Amino acid sequence: MCSVMKETLKPTNPLETLSDILHDDMAATNKLILDRLQSDVPLIPKVASYLIAAGGKRIRPLLTLACGNVFKADKHKMYGLAASVEFIHSASLLHDDVVDESDERRGQPAANLVFGNHASVLVGDFLFARAFELMVETGKLRVLALLSEAARTITEGEVLQLVAKGRIDLSYETYLQIIAAKTSALFGAACASGPALAGADEETVKAFYDYGYALGMGFQLRDDVLDYTGNEEKRGKVPGDDFREGKITGPVILALEKGIEADFWQRVMIDKQQGKKDFARALDILGSNGLLEESEARAAKYADQAVQALAQTPNSPIKQTLCEIAHYAVNREA
Amino acid sequence: MCSVMKETLKPTNPLETLSDILHDDMAATNKLILDRLQSDVPLIPKVASYLIAAGGKRIRPLLTLACGNVFKADKHKMYGLAASVEFIHSASLLHDDVVDESDERRGQPAANLVFGNHASVLVGDFLFARAFELMVETGKLRVLALLSEAARTITEGEVLQLVAKGRIDLSYETYLQIIAAKTSALFGAACASGPALAGADEETVKAFYDYGYALGMGFQLRDDVLDYTGNEEKRGKVPGDDFREGKITGPVILALEKGIEADFWQRVMIDKQQGKKDFARALDILGSNGLLEESEARAAKYADQAVQALAQTPNSPIKQTLCEIAHYAVNREA
Repeated sequence: MCSVMKETLKPTNPLETLSDILHDDMAATNKLILDRLQSDVPLIPKVASYLIAAGGKRIRPLLTLACGNVFKADKHKMYGLAASVEFIHSASLLHDDVVDESDERRGQPAANLVFGNHASVLVGDFLFARAFELMVETGKLRVLALLSEAARTITEGEVLQLVAKGRIDLSYETYLQIIAAKTSALFGAACASGPALAGADEETVKAFYDYGYALGMGFQLRDDVLDYTGNEEKRGKVPGDDFREGKITGPVILALEKGIEADFWQRVMIDKQQGKKDFARALDILGSNGLLEESEARAAKYADQAVQALAQTPNSPIKQTLCEIAHYAVNREA
Repeated sequence: MCSVMKETLKPTNPLETLSDILHDDMAATNKLILDRLQSDVPLIPKVASYLIAAGGKRIRPLLTLACGNVFKADKHKMYGLAASVEFIHSASLLHDDVVDESDERRGQPAANLVFGNHASVLVGDFLFARAFELMVETGKLRVLALLSEAARTITEGEVLQLVAKGRIDLSYETYLQIIAAKTSALFGAACASGPALAGADEETVKAFYDYGYALGMGFQLRDDVLDYTGNEEKRGKVPGDDFREGKITGPVILALEKGIEADFWQRVMIDKQQGKKDFARALDILGSNGLLEESEARAAKYADQAVQALAQTPNSPIKQTLCEIAHYAVNREA
């Protein structure tokens, strides 16, 4: 298994290491992404490229390329697969922003504000359908099965979240179910589809799925904490987005489950009556009751799970980096 | 080729004949549809079954079953395929109603009004993803290619329509492009996927695609006319829905292209200032200038094209019924 542990983490960002290793593959994938968001209907590439060109970490296609490379998957098909994964993610962001009535995405006004909800819904549909066209071109049914299941699971997570919205009695278990469906399922499928494309056995495909799934959980749980404790300079934005939007995430659910300051959370998160000092108070409640630490400990467990999932798979420099990424995901400051 | 011509049409509805022939297959498909719209998230089957159980003609899955039966496709896979086609159609209706801000669908309040736009968007996504899962289960990449292309084309048609909304200078050509993308592409793929599932050669698959495509065009152009001339008793609703919603369809575009009563159309369709007698006046303008007849003649040409497309394919009772359906589509009164 991977030898990297939390203590031995290098100061470098292993996602950047991976980006460097896979620079040419990622460039080919980005080219394909831009190529396949084209359409005879000009509004489609306009909306799609507004979102996609605005950046984002491209972590999902990077994982697909990484896991495909471990098994020497066909390069050309791998690019199609990685683009497909990014299209599914982009489609879900477009629809998510409509449903959440978001104002901002990737540091710019959200597409729904610029082009309208209707265009966001339809262009999301386009990207989703295009993702399936790209997958069909790989000619691998196993890959299609993995990603169509992930795509369906994302929608189930979104609906579950929609139903849970504004509920102060949301259980931590349901919360984990939501982020598992919304985030981890696609992380898992992104990782598993690489070896699946290369024709790896089911056990190996499952190992990479489990890695990606646990990585996704760790990433999201760390995000929840960073939104309270994050450093403005390192993250390029002030903390407290979730708090100000009344988005109840892991640490707050832990507080509510333990009956800590229920009235405060009701006022600021549900009734959305927030004063100037309320974010500091929230941070203090979460900090002094060890709830941020508990969230971090839960995230760390997922990192260990991710590394463990790959234990029986062949060693390689990329696998080593994947293990580093699992720990980085739950220890990062940005 | 088919021997049925317009003159020899039986008074019976050939769609009902087809439903009778395929009764057991359709029942199995309906069972599968209800089974596969289930989810652990209760709101999903609630919204999905609200739309799907409200009826609709189920013409697309019926066509898939019919064309699959001609080639003795595997029954079980055929049901999955037919359900998949209906799911794609249902997903597009849910999103279409959000985009059009529709009040009514299938004689009941539209899902977006009952459950909200957000639920309609997400449950549409679910059905779309589920459609792909069902397709993957058929194990036929050719079928996946046909339907993923159709799904993408539908979204392009929707966006084209969104952009064209409220434009009085919409050309008839662009209008045909919109209905081809929104309706005919899925009709074509629904028909072609039957023989594709059974492993028929490309020429045959294309012939069935062309049949379905032309059938879809004829259906839609006839719908446009019926919305002006339709009999309330036979259709179960008063004519004029498109007119009252300011939806510019074929006959009106013909009037505008010929410069007939441009001011009137501007007032009633764009500015939506409609008086009590305006629908009668619209009907009179379209009738006295031969524009409804011209629309019917164009529809009839598509019926001929549909029949022609099947000319070189093997004769069978189902093929005979398909030819009757092509003519029925453009001559029906309801």
